[in-house]
Amino acid sequence: MRASQFFISTLKEAPADAEVASHKLMMRAGMIKRLGAGIYNYMPMGLRVIRKVEAIIREEMNRAGAVELLMPVVQPAELWQETGRFEKMGPELLRVKDRHDRDFIIQPTSEEVVTDIARQELRSYKQLPKNFYHIQTKFRDERRPRFGVMRGREFTMKDAYSFDRDAAGATRSYESMFAAYKRIFDRFGLEYRAVAADTGAIGGDLSHEFQVIADTGEDAIVYCPTSDYAANIELAEAVAPAAPRAAAAEALVKAPTPGKSTCAAVAELLGLPLSRTVKSLVLATDEWNDEGDLVKSTVWLLLVRGDHEMNEIKVGKVEGLKSGFRFATAAEIDAHFGCKPGYLGPIGLKQPLKIVADRTVAAMSDFVCGANDEDFHFTGVNWGRDLPEPDVVADIRNIVAGDPSPDGQGVLAIQRGIEVGHVFYLGTKYSKAMNATFLDETGKPALFEMGCYGIGVTRILGAAIEQNHDARGIIWPDAMAPFTLAVCPIGADRSAAVKAAAQALYDELDAAGIDVILDDRGERPGAMFADWELIGVPHRVVISDRGLKEGQLEYQGRRDEAATKVPAGEVAAFVKGRLKA
Amino acid sequence: MRASQFFISTLKEAPADAEVASHKLMMRAGMIKRLGAGIYNYMPMGLRVIRKVEAIIREEMNRAGAVELLMPVVQPAELWQETGRFEKMGPELLRVKDRHDRDFIIQPTSEEVVTDIARQELRSYKQLPKNFYHIQTKFRDERRPRFGVMRGREFTMKDAYSFDRDAAGATRSYESMFAAYKRIFDRFGLEYRAVAADTGAIGGDLSHEFQVIADTGEDAIVYCPTSDYAANIELAEAVAPAAPRAAAAEALVKAPTPGKSTCAAVAELLGLPLSRTVKSLVLATDEWNDEGDLVKSTVWLLLVRGDHEMNEIKVGKVEGLKSGFRFATAAEIDAHFGCKPGYLGPIGLKQPLKIVADRTVAAMSDFVCGANDEDFHFTGVNWGRDLPEPDVVADIRNIVAGDPSPDGQGVLAIQRGIEVGHVFYLGTKYSKAMNATFLDETGKPALFEMGCYGIGVTRILGAAIEQNHDARGIIWPDAMAPFTLAVCPIGADRSAAVKAAAQALYDELDAAGIDVILDDRGERPGAMFADWELIGVPHRVVISDRGLKEGQLEYQGRRDEAATKVPAGEVAAFVKGRLKA
Repeated sequence: MRASQFFISTLKEAPADAEVASHKLMMRAGMIKRLGAGIYNYMPMGLRVIRKVEAIIREEMNRAGAVELLMPVVQPAELWQETGRFEKMGPELLRVKDRHDRDFIIQPTSEEVVTDIARQELRSYKQLPKNFYHIQTKFRDERRPRFGVMRGREFTMKDAYSFDRDAAGATRSYESMFAAYKRIFDRFGLEYRAVAADTGAIGGDLSHEFQVIADTGEDAIVYCPTSDYAANIELAEAVAPAAPRAAAAEALVKAPTPGKSTCAAVAELLGLPLSRTVKSLVLATDEWNDEGDLVKSTVWLLLVRGDHEMNEIKVGKVEGLKSGFRFATAAEIDAHFGCKPGYLGPIGLKQPLKIVADRTVAAMSDFVCGANDEDFHFTGVNWGRDLPEPDVVADIRNIVAGDPSPDGQGVLAIQRGIEVGHVFYLGTKYSKAMNATFLDETGKPALFEMGCYGIGVTRILGAAIEQNHDARGIIWPDAMAPFTLAVCPIGADRSAAVKAAAQALYDELDAAGIDVILDDRGERPGAMFADWELIGVPHRVVISDRGLKEGQLEYQGRRDEAATKVPAGEVAAFVKGRLKA
Repeated sequence: MRASQFFISTLKEAPADAEVASHKLMMRAGMIKRLGAGIYNYMPMGLRVIRKVEAIIREEMNRAGAVELLMPVVQPAELWQETGRFEKMGPELLRVKDRHDRDFIIQPTSEEVVTDIARQELRSYKQLPKNFYHIQTKFRDERRPRFGVMRGREFTMKDAYSFDRDAAGATRSYESMFAAYKRIFDRFGLEYRAVAADTGAIGGDLSHEFQVIADTGEDAIVYCPTSDYAANIELAEAVAPAAPRAAAAEALVKAPTPGKSTCAAVAELLGLPLSRTVKSLVLATDEWNDEGDLVKSTVWLLLVRGDHEMNEIKVGKVEGLKSGFRFATAAEIDAHFGCKPGYLGPIGLKQPLKIVADRTVAAMSDFVCGANDEDFHFTGVNWGRDLPEPDVVADIRNIVAGDPSPDGQGVLAIQRGIEVGHVFYLGTKYSKAMNATFLDETGKPALFEMGCYGIGVTRILGAAIEQNHDARGIIWPDAMAPFTLAVCPIGADRSAAVKAAAQALYDELDAAGIDVILDDRGERPGAMFADWELIGVPHRVVISDRGLKEGQLEYQGRRDEAATKVPAGEVAAFVKGRLKA
């Protein structure tokens, strides 16, 4: 490609609404152009990256035996009503009526449509397993679109759906996709981690997120540097302390803590470490009868250590809290504790309630908690002696760095990541809702066991940049770069030798299969280099009159501190040696 | 590709709602699957054809210097309000409101968005010309979607938009696109014709439709078999008869024609050729004042020969009718003619009106027309003698086969076509509405001269099939086929030699760069051949034990009457010799 026939549009400054590096750099490099909130034009430079990402995904999906099709963007509501998602999904589902006032949606994913295809097309167990995928425009009407392509409204996603005859088959399909995703992300050249994720109501342990590691990521990833263990923070298990609970050593004391309504403030006042305090969180559950009347509410007290955070996903797995919970009202708190929040605790309750202690709390002794009396806390609290053992002991907190790994192979660390892929075992959730069956070996209808597998194609651009950039701009991995190499002639307007050498090198590299762009715009060296560094092209060769006289061209990798002189005849071989894809 | 790893789903019968051959065959061959009215899933077999079509389009667009980007499906209404299309377009424009109740549209084309990009990005004449294109999902909410992908609601279109500094530049861009389109349609291997089309309010003669020739096409194409002339029926000029008007030979006679209210019935009754009769069509125009009140209506009488059809596009170019016209009301007809339709004519009017005669009618003598008296017609009517010369003489009729070619190079023929591409000079229509300017050489803002260039990607599949099918199924041109060649082993389950030979041939053809599918499904020969003939794969090689013994394989082209025996070792070379793409 010649730059003069392409479209290059770089900016010195990013627009004010760009908050994160990837958004700023994609705007500045002319990769995207805002059309509306969360809606972008993919400009020629950005589209080239998308196409490279799509090509890698397509190759590896095909290699794994998945079959590509294309499902529509505009989908009839009927199918979404079959699964209940038309009603259940919030305003992020973009609904539209056609000229005949019929309901449609703009697809955010395609479970319903692909299940409808399967129930018509996959009639026999002999046709299974089957995995259909497409790479298609999606829309999610985010309440607050931001971060450019990282949380846009319109985006491109690869979504695949596997259909199997039983759970064992579905597991094999899942593992095949997991392996394909590893190949895909390896080929992108990104640092990533496949982390176990929560499966929600489906159960089982077949859910992994593919997280691109980046300090600016929204997600916390828990991993063990000395083993394979990796999970997202929602799932990562906090194991019970190995040491048994110590015997009580202190007396129970009601200490004045005026105005100290947080664990941190109490610990400071008392001169104790925060890890000696216990925090009280009050939840409630409701029961309804068939007529939809509220028949009973139950209040729960959850206890986590003062320096720990409650994990709502884990709380949702506690028996009795699985069907949903809410924070208790002020009236409920007053009725059970007779005290306002900030000084609540498990001792001296006005009404009995269910107490759930985090595993760590259950193993504590001589701890500090609220006294259910404003401006007072208890110190020296001990289970069994000062209050009954908790009703439930469970893992209800987030991991913190340094916690032991659940696999017993070391201690956990935490890093930030950006979720760009997800593989998920769906079981019969959709096939059951849509009565999607095939005939099994005995000739009886059986529900498909399904899996779904997504990759956020456009989001990957943002994630790659968050991970790979510096003050000068983007640093694309070879496999994702809009161009692999830029040939930069200096003074081609004055020197026929430079112009001819640049053209010859371009032809040679192009013939060698390298995706090269010849910068024939006639820009001055500074502006030209700044553009390619901002755009993030990973390799550059500079051709100048001086270099030609010396028989040397200057090669510089995007991460290199300085240029390397390469004999003019050896540039193609040299560059090939540098390529990672 | 192996058939067992792909997805093949053929049907014996087409669904009842499929009216045309392409729709029936695409459904039967498992290329598309209906999701809703005018909305289809592109199944794996159909998607392969789309991808081949897209690849050819992309290569030739890039070769012509156009630059690919990707504009969103969901577009903010604001831009469409700037051009007025948000209000002006009918219900075929799918409108949608987001969660904040803001208006959006699902794009049917992208003139507004690309003009918005240009007015921001193309700031100087030095950046021109520029041509941006994308291949993207479109939606047009057709009142009556039908014919499968030929008139669907959701479809894929390639739309390109050129930006030039002046009309001369725009003409060059137009010509470059015209040439690129010819290369594209040549490469598809379809019989097509580029026909001149009407430019409407824009004026000029830079509008061509690319029509795929098919008897079932909705459009009539006028062409001259002995010259390059080709135009669509709306535009094709009916030249004035070469011979001057003959002198009057008959007397004016008022002939009784009871119950004969059509030219055909009158001609039959009188024993005259239909070409001696003249048909009267009554139109009206309205004038409004600035307050929107109707101030005046004018009635027009249009005369075309009895065997000709009025052409509304041409009528709309007559001075006085350019701003729109309607058919006259019964009351208007009665006030001017004192007679009901069926017996109207230009002689003996109750009130004067404007008479527009088609060129052919103006050259007639001794003709027949209504007498403005129920059940009577005049015969022997002559201009000048029986009535004044017409107020206007114009080309207001459709061409009929046998009319002289406007280029004087022969006589015209008519064939049917399916419009799959359109190149169009837009002038400043959009740039003016959106104030899209660049700085010209004098530093002054100037409006972009634009062109737009569309190709209906998914529609081409239907058009290709309408042109290329037989009783057994589709016959794809090589360049569009989902697979170029099917290797069909017979009895591979019984014969290890057949199985091994099929695999070896597949490997050889695949390595030779031929897009081959190995049918390893284990189907019986009849079912296997019927599938590939229905799907329309253009080349087939059959491998059987008998053939292997003889050292011969059977090759059969999809249009061949019988198979050709080819020595086993020469199949790849033989097939390559047969390929057209």
